[in-house]
Amino acid sequence: MFKKILIANRGEIAMRVIRTCKEMGIKTVAVYSTADAESLHVRFADEAVCIGPAPSNESYLKMANIIAAAEITNADAIHPGYGFLSENAKFSKICEEHEIKFIGASAEMIEKMGDKATAKATMKAAGVPTIPGSEGILDTFEETEALADEMGYPVMLKATAGGGGKGMRAVWKKEELRKGWDSARQEAAASFGNDGMYMEKLIEEPRHIEIQIVGDSNGTACHLSERDCSVQRRHQKLTEETPSPFMTNELREKMGEAAVKAAEYIKYEGAGTVEFLVDKHRNFYFMEMNTRIQVEHPITEQVVDYDLIREQILVAAGIPISGKNYFPQLHSIECRINAEDPYKDFRPSPGKITNLHIPGGHGVRVDTHVYSGYTIPPNYDSMIAKLITTAQTREEAINKMKRALDEFIIEGIKTTVPFHRQLMDHPDYVAGNYTTKFMEDFEMKEPVS
Amino acid sequence: MFKKILIANRGEIAMRVIRTCKEMGIKTVAVYSTADAESLHVRFADEAVCIGPAPSNESYLKMANIIAAAEITNADAIHPGYGFLSENAKFSKICEEHEIKFIGASAEMIEKMGDKATAKATMKAAGVPTIPGSEGILDTFEETEALADEMGYPVMLKATAGGGGKGMRAVWKKEELRKGWDSARQEAAASFGNDGMYMEKLIEEPRHIEIQIVGDSNGTACHLSERDCSVQRRHQKLTEETPSPFMTNELREKMGEAAVKAAEYIKYEGAGTVEFLVDKHRNFYFMEMNTRIQVEHPITEQVVDYDLIREQILVAAGIPISGKNYFPQLHSIECRINAEDPYKDFRPSPGKITNLHIPGGHGVRVDTHVYSGYTIPPNYDSMIAKLITTAQTREEAINKMKRALDEFIIEGIKTTVPFHRQLMDHPDYVAGNYTTKFMEDFEMKEPVS
Repeated sequence: MFKKILIANRGEIAMRVIRTCKEMGIKTVAVYSTADAESLHVRFADEAVCIGPAPSNESYLKMANIIAAAEITNADAIHPGYGFLSENAKFSKICEEHEIKFIGASAEMIEKMGDKATAKATMKAAGVPTIPGSEGILDTFEETEALADEMGYPVMLKATAGGGGKGMRAVWKKEELRKGWDSARQEAAASFGNDGMYMEKLIEEPRHIEIQIVGDSNGTACHLSERDCSVQRRHQKLTEETPSPFMTNELREKMGEAAVKAAEYIKYEGAGTVEFLVDKHRNFYFMEMNTRIQVEHPITEQVVDYDLIREQILVAAGIPISGKNYFPQLHSIECRINAEDPYKDFRPSPGKITNLHIPGGHGVRVDTHVYSGYTIPPNYDSMIAKLITTAQTREEAINKMKRALDEFIIEGIKTTVPFHRQLMDHPDYVAGNYTTKFMEDFEMKEPVS
Repeated sequence: MFKKILIANRGEIAMRVIRTCKEMGIKTVAVYSTADAESLHVRFADEAVCIGPAPSNESYLKMANIIAAAEITNADAIHPGYGFLSENAKFSKICEEHEIKFIGASAEMIEKMGDKATAKATMKAAGVPTIPGSEGILDTFEETEALADEMGYPVMLKATAGGGGKGMRAVWKKEELRKGWDSARQEAAASFGNDGMYMEKLIEEPRHIEIQIVGDSNGTACHLSERDCSVQRRHQKLTEETPSPFMTNELREKMGEAAVKAAEYIKYEGAGTVEFLVDKHRNFYFMEMNTRIQVEHPITEQVVDYDLIREQILVAAGIPISGKNYFPQLHSIECRINAEDPYKDFRPSPGKITNLHIPGGHGVRVDTHVYSGYTIPPNYDSMIAKLITTAQTREEAINKMKRALDEFIIEGIKTTVPFHRQLMDHPDYVAGNYTTKFMEDFEMKEPVS
C-alpha cells in the first residue's frame, strides 16, 4: 500500500481525498497556490507545499512543480481529484516516468477516451450503443433519406458550419424530410455560406444518466448503478440524484451491462464514469467516458455503502475488485452549492464568508472546504460545498434536502442555496419529470423579503 | 397527523426533533430560557416562546409555562426530548388533560417503569431475566447461604446502609461466604452503625448493553437491536456503539426477544430502551427501562436506516408499526462531545466558542446546536455535540472517528475531543474488550505540545 499520497488539487475534493487517506493510515501531502494558503486542505494534510501563484497554469496545472513537490516529500502516489490534471495524458505519463503512481487512468486510456471520435468508435466496436448518424457530410438527399430510414425517425439535420440553432431541423417523419433538408440547406447557405449537412438520430426528451464503474488491473470491472445528472445549466450539472426517477430495473441492467462491457473492452483500471443520453423511449446512447472521480460521486457512495476514493486507491495499488455490481438501496440527492447569485444569471460571487452554519443530522452529508471567515478566491471554480441527503425514498430525500437547505446559512456572499430550495419545490422536479432541457425554462421566483 | 409540535427541550435534541418535523411537514414551536435566546433551536423552529429564566426549574421544568406556550401557539403535541420532563408522569398526565398529545409514555407507564422495584417486579412477571438477589434484608447467615447456593456464585454482599464500597464483599465460592458475611457486617456496623445486609448475584465483567424498542397503540412491539454503552464515567455514558463487539447473533436474538416481550407485556407505546447488564458468560439481566428517546439513538438510526424521531411521531399519531425487527447492517460509533476538560477530571468548561469547524464527508454525522460565536451557558448539561461515524466494519468506523476527531476544531473552550481521540487508540477499546469498569483505570496521556 502507498505510504504517502500527494493530492494535486484544491477545495472540497482535496479534503475528500485527505479524509479517506487518513482513514486508511496513508500520509498526505497538500499542494496549494498562494491564493489557497488559508484553505482547509492545507491545514488537514500532513504536509503542504506551495506550488505557485493563484492562476492555475502557474500552480495546479504546473506539472513540474507538482512532480517536484512529490519528490521532495517522497510521495509515492498522486491523486489528481477532478478537473486540473486529472484527465491529462501527459501528466499521467510524467508520473509514470518518475515512478510515482498516478491514481487515475493511464496516458493511453486518457487519450483514447479524451478524443470524442476515437471514444465513439471504440465504444461502437465494444458493442455499446452510440448516437447513430452520418459519417461526415451528406452529399445527396437520397443518401440522407436512406440513412434516415435505416436509423429511424425522428432525426436531426445539422449544418456542419452551424451554431445558434441555424441550419438545424428536427424531422419527425419521412414525408417531412425533403422539406427539412431543403430549408436547412438554404438557411445554412444564407447564414454561413456553406450548405454542408450531417445528420444524427434525434434524442427525444434526453436525460443525462451516467453509470459509475470501477475496473482493476486484471481487467475485471463492475458497475455501481446510475446517477441522473439531467438538471444542467449550460452543460454544468447543478444537482444529481440516484436512483434516476426515470430508471427501470430492466434499463439499469442493460445500461450497467453496457458500461461494464465498455470498461472491460478497454481494460479500464480505476474509477470511471460512462455517460449516456437516454431518450423518452429508454433507448440509451454513449456520450463520453470520464476517466476520473466525478464531483457527484458521493450520491453513489451513499446508496451502495462504498467509498469510491478508497477503491481508487486500492485498485491503483494493484488490489483486485470482486467484480460484483452494486445496486441502490436508498435514495440520494446532491445539490452543488456554488458561490453564484442565482437571481443574477448565476454570476460568480467570490468573497469572504462572514457567517456559516452547515446543516447536519440524520441523512445529511456535507463535503466542503470552507469555514466561517474563509475568503473564496475569484480564481477557481465557484463550487464551495456539496450538500447530500439520503433517505429511504425519493420523497423523503427531497424533504430532507429542503430542511437542510433551509438550515444552510452562508453570509457575506451569494450562493445557489435559494436556487436549490426553489428547485426542490418545482412540480416537474418533484415529479421526477425533467430532461437536460429543464433549466431552459426555469426561472427564479423573487425572494420573499 | 399533528399540525404543530412543541419541543419542550433545548440543545441538540431540540434541533433533532425540529429537523424531523420539518421533513414531515409539521410546524414546530421552540421554547427557550433567557439563557438560550441565541440557540439554534430558537432560530430554526417556526415559532419560539420564552418560558422563563435560566434555571431549569423556572423554565424547562416549569410545566405551566410549557403548557401555556403550547396553548397560545396551538400546538397539538409536545415532544419532550430526553431529560427535563421526558419521564415525568405528572407532565404526561397534564398534557393529556389539556388534550395535547405527549410524544412519550403515558403517566401510568412512566410510573411503572420509573420506580426501580416496580419495574423489576414487572419484568420478572413478564419473564425477562432480572438480577437475582435477596428480597430485602437477610436475617441470618444460613438464609444467606441457602440463597447463594440457589443463585450460584459469585455473589455480592451489600450493606443496606452502604456507600463508597464500605460493607461490600464479593464472594466467589461457598467456602468464602462465612468470612465475607462476617467481615462485611462488622465493617457495616462500624461504618454506618447498621449491619443490615442484602445480597445480589455478582455480575462478572459487566457490560451495559441496551435494546432499542418501538411499540404501537395496538400493543405490537419490535426491536432495533442493541447499543453497547459500557464506556461510562460515573454512570455517564461517554461513547456508544452498535453492534456491540461483545454481541453474538444468538445473544442478540435472545436479548431482542426479551426486550420485545417486556414491551408487549406492558403494552408499551412509543420508542423506549430496555437496559441490560451482560456478564462475561453472556447472561443478561434487566436493569431499567427508559421511556423516552436516548441521547445515543443516532447510532441505531445509522445502522438500520430508520428515523426514530419520525417513528415516535407516527406511533403517537396512532399509526401502527409493522412489527418486524431490525438488525445492524453497518457499524456505528457515537462520541459525546462535552464542554469539559478531560485533563482536569472532566471539569465543565462553559464559555464562548471562538472558532468552530465541524467534520464532514463520507460516513460522518454531527448532531449539534452550537456554532462559531455561540456561548455555552453554564446552566445545563455539558454535551455540545454528538459525533457519529458509520462504516461497514468496526475498524473502519474507528478510523473514521479518529480522522473526524482530528478535524473537529472547537476553540475558546475545553472539550472531550482529546479524550475520545485517545480512547480510539486505546488497545482495549480497539479490541472491543471493555466493561463498565473501563474508565476506572483510564488515564489521559499528556497532550503533545
